Amino acid sequence: MVLRDRRFLHARDTHRAQVGASLRVGLLGGNQGTGLVTRMEPDLLELEVELLQAPPPKLPLILLMALPRPKALNRVLASATSLGAAQIHLINAWKVEKSYWKSPRLEPANLLHQRVLGLEQAKDTVLPTLHLHRLFRPFAEEVLPSLVADRLALVAHPGAWEPCPRQVTGPVTLALGPEGGWTDPEMQTLIARGVRPVALGPRILRTETAVAALVGRLF
Amino acid sequence: MVLRDRRFLHARDTHRAQVGASLRVGLLGGNQGTGLVTRMEPDLLELEVELLQAPPPKLPLILLMALPRPKALNRVLASATSLGAAQIHLINAWKVEKSYWKSPRLEPANLLHQRVLGLEQAKDTVLPTLHLHRLFRPFAEEVLPSLVADRLALVAHPGAWEPCPRQVTGPVTLALGPEGGWTDPEMQTLIARGVRPVALGPRILRTETAVAALVGRLF
Repeated sequence: MVLRDRRFLHARDTHRAQVGASLRVGLLGGNQGTGLVTRMEPDLLELEVELLQAPPPKLPLILLMALPRPKALNRVLASATSLGAAQIHLINAWKVEKSYWKSPRLEPANLLHQRVLGLEQAKDTVLPTLHLHRLFRPFAEEVLPSLVADRLALVAHPGAWEPCPRQVTGPVTLALGPEGGWTDPEMQTLIARGVRPVALGPRILRTETAVAALVGRLF
Repeated sequence: MVLRDRRFLHARDTHRAQVGASLRVGLLGGNQGTGLVTRMEPDLLELEVELLQAPPPKLPLILLMALPRPKALNRVLASATSLGAAQIHLINAWKVEKSYWKSPRLEPANLLHQRVLGLEQAKDTVLPTLHLHRLFRPFAEEVLPSLVADRLALVAHPGAWEPCPRQVTGPVTLALGPEGGWTDPEMQTLIARGVRPVALGPRILRTETAVAALVGRLF
């Protein structure tokens, strides 16, 4: 297997790999294992790979997030991927600025790249599926029911709700609002579809911090 | 109270504040409440503030972290502050590159600014104390004993350790290693001082993601 891209640069500059070195490698969508460096040129390296280990299991977690501002999107995607979410849904909401949907960061190549970075961080090889929903109401009416059926469905929202449950055993669907929160009608729509509001204490956290704290608590 | 700095710009551009508007404000180290905009000029605004609410309580958490790479430092500080850590200690470790200690991000003004950003995010007003330890061994010998006395003391480390405990009641000291992990001698030093190694699953997480996941699990 020959590498010429940023993986080559990472092996050369970060790991200072030379012929004979053994690197941890994984095949996107497949197993992971080791790669023995058999050739090193100025612009490429060749690996003999052995892929015998299965990737770590995914969490039984579907994440529904209001589309974050572009500056935060990359972090949120990589972080949710590294934590092991199985599905990520990015949804419109009243307080999501329209311009966010036009960000170049929403191009498929970037959405893939950020998830791959999350996989690399966590030594995982299986991408979470990613779904964009540019309209809240059709999402809530047509898609949401299938995402909450037979699962614990929670929406983390500031307020005097019951605390988020701990150490659940079954699958979970977890919704997080935009920076300004869900509006009351949005909350009512979620609740009407069976999503239970839960609180996460008095502190307002950034989306990726809240996701990590909730994952640590739930699983 | 007159504001001319980025807080003025934030009120004007993000909140689109005008005379008569009511903003949420907090006094660093003091209470929080509301600020009524009484004057708006091209380069300043004036507020009449009423500060009657106490800030949210801190977590009984002392965080010990190997100094992160400069690119990650700001995120780690803001995120740990937003989560409510009471003390943050940044420590040298074998796998912390020497150059990290020379980063301009370690200048006091930046270390303060990042924590203030974390407070603003979480609607908190009380800074976590911040402590830099440029040498591991003197830290472990002279400072660590006082940070683990009469507290649950944990070090999150990849491996077959017992899982991190959940929902503890008392104070916690939590140590996290550098990107490459603590060395064996460092782990032995921590363990000899009463710090218990715990695991956080098969995934390797970025420092700020791991801190949030552990906080969600512990408290």
